[in-house]
Amino acid sequence: MRIPNHIGIIPDGNRRWALLNNLTKDKGYEHGINPGLEVFKLCQKENIKELTFYGFTIDNTKRPSEQKLAFIQACIDSVMLLTKEDCEILVIGNTESSAFPKALIPFTTRKKFGNGGIKVNFLIHYGWEWDLNLLKESKSSNKHILPYIHSEDISRIDLIIRWGGRRRLSGFLPIQSVYSDFYVIDTYWPDFTSTDFYNALDWYNEQDVTLGG
Amino acid sequence: MRIPNHIGIIPDGNRRWALLNNLTKDKGYEHGINPGLEVFKLCQKENIKELTFYGFTIDNTKRPSEQKLAFIQACIDSVMLLTKEDCEILVIGNTESSAFPKALIPFTTRKKFGNGGIKVNFLIHYGWEWDLNLLKESKSSNKHILPYIHSEDISRIDLIIRWGGRRRLSGFLPIQSVYSDFYVIDTYWPDFTSTDFYNALDWYNEQDVTLGG
Repeated sequence: MRIPNHIGIIPDGNRRWALLNNLTKDKGYEHGINPGLEVFKLCQKENIKELTFYGFTIDNTKRPSEQKLAFIQACIDSVMLLTKEDCEILVIGNTESSAFPKALIPFTTRKKFGNGGIKVNFLIHYGWEWDLNLLKESKSSNKHILPYIHSEDISRIDLIIRWGGRRRLSGFLPIQSVYSDFYVIDTYWPDFTSTDFYNALDWYNEQDVTLGG
Repeated sequence: MRIPNHIGIIPDGNRRWALLNNLTKDKGYEHGINPGLEVFKLCQKENIKELTFYGFTIDNTKRPSEQKLAFIQACIDSVMLLTKEDCEILVIGNTESSAFPKALIPFTTRKKFGNGGIKVNFLIHYGWEWDLNLLKESKSSNKHILPYIHSEDISRIDLIIRWGGRRRLSGFLPIQSVYSDFYVIDTYWPDFTSTDFYNALDWYNEQDVTLGG
């Protein structure tokens, strides 16, 4: 079976899940923490080398403050949970704002936990324009793009899985996503099951790899 | 009904269509010309403001020469067909190579035909890294990206429709695609029917627009 090296996760649908479960929108995010740990453990089991979670964006911080506080806390808790596992964590995002959680500053260079192994990246207070603007500071004549953006330490993504039914990238790592296969799951992220994950892997296994050729 | 302003077309599956119809792979491309005219006319009818076709990429030119000659000719013919219609044509791609067809040089600034109206863009000898490399020559402190890339005259895309079943962007305008809704049709591009187009519009109509918010 052909296994992706690097999986991107767009964990969408927390607020819609909350409303469906008679909760206020801000209560959805805490139910998205455990699915993150589950998907990490499945990736570890299947020898995936790298895993990137779409945490929150600069644009997301324009949402009502109770939602903003809730998704920031859920992201912090998600990172902290993984520090108890064998992995290498990196947080990428614009730290030059009070919206970037101070608790995650130590993770902005990659940190090894336990025996290390799988790389786990979190996009925290990320913005695609922020990411790519660093290109304007490069004078390199190298034709490649990735080495000159803020997220340079996140590699090309093979498979993106999005929960919540929407078929769009919503600003998720445009450079690393140019050749990614994109699998969409209709159920909301807090309702994650391992079947979602294995359906995505089975589908990926049937795709070919051309990398634009 | 909510109609997209700008539709991107990824006309994939020409070679697979050719094999299925007992032709050699290079014979598929000429059967992709007429579908392009059909989709143009449907867009015109539905008041779409802008339409972008993924012609061929720098990477595509590494294919066998009979295929390369065939897709280049199909692209030239597609552009020429539209010069008989009411539209405004722009070709974007790396012209600094013999693989860029000389016949299309006049279209690298937007040209009006008939009564003008709908903007039609063709990506010809395009490469996403080529497109974005221009950012390295910008010293602007403006936080936006689009005004500083080669494809700056192509606007944000609302709906991308891809034929041929693959669920990936394959390097198609990564900046203009960050928020695009992505609709995939399993049949091959030469088998295009207007039903494909209207199914995509119906699906788009059911999506919400958040632009990352």
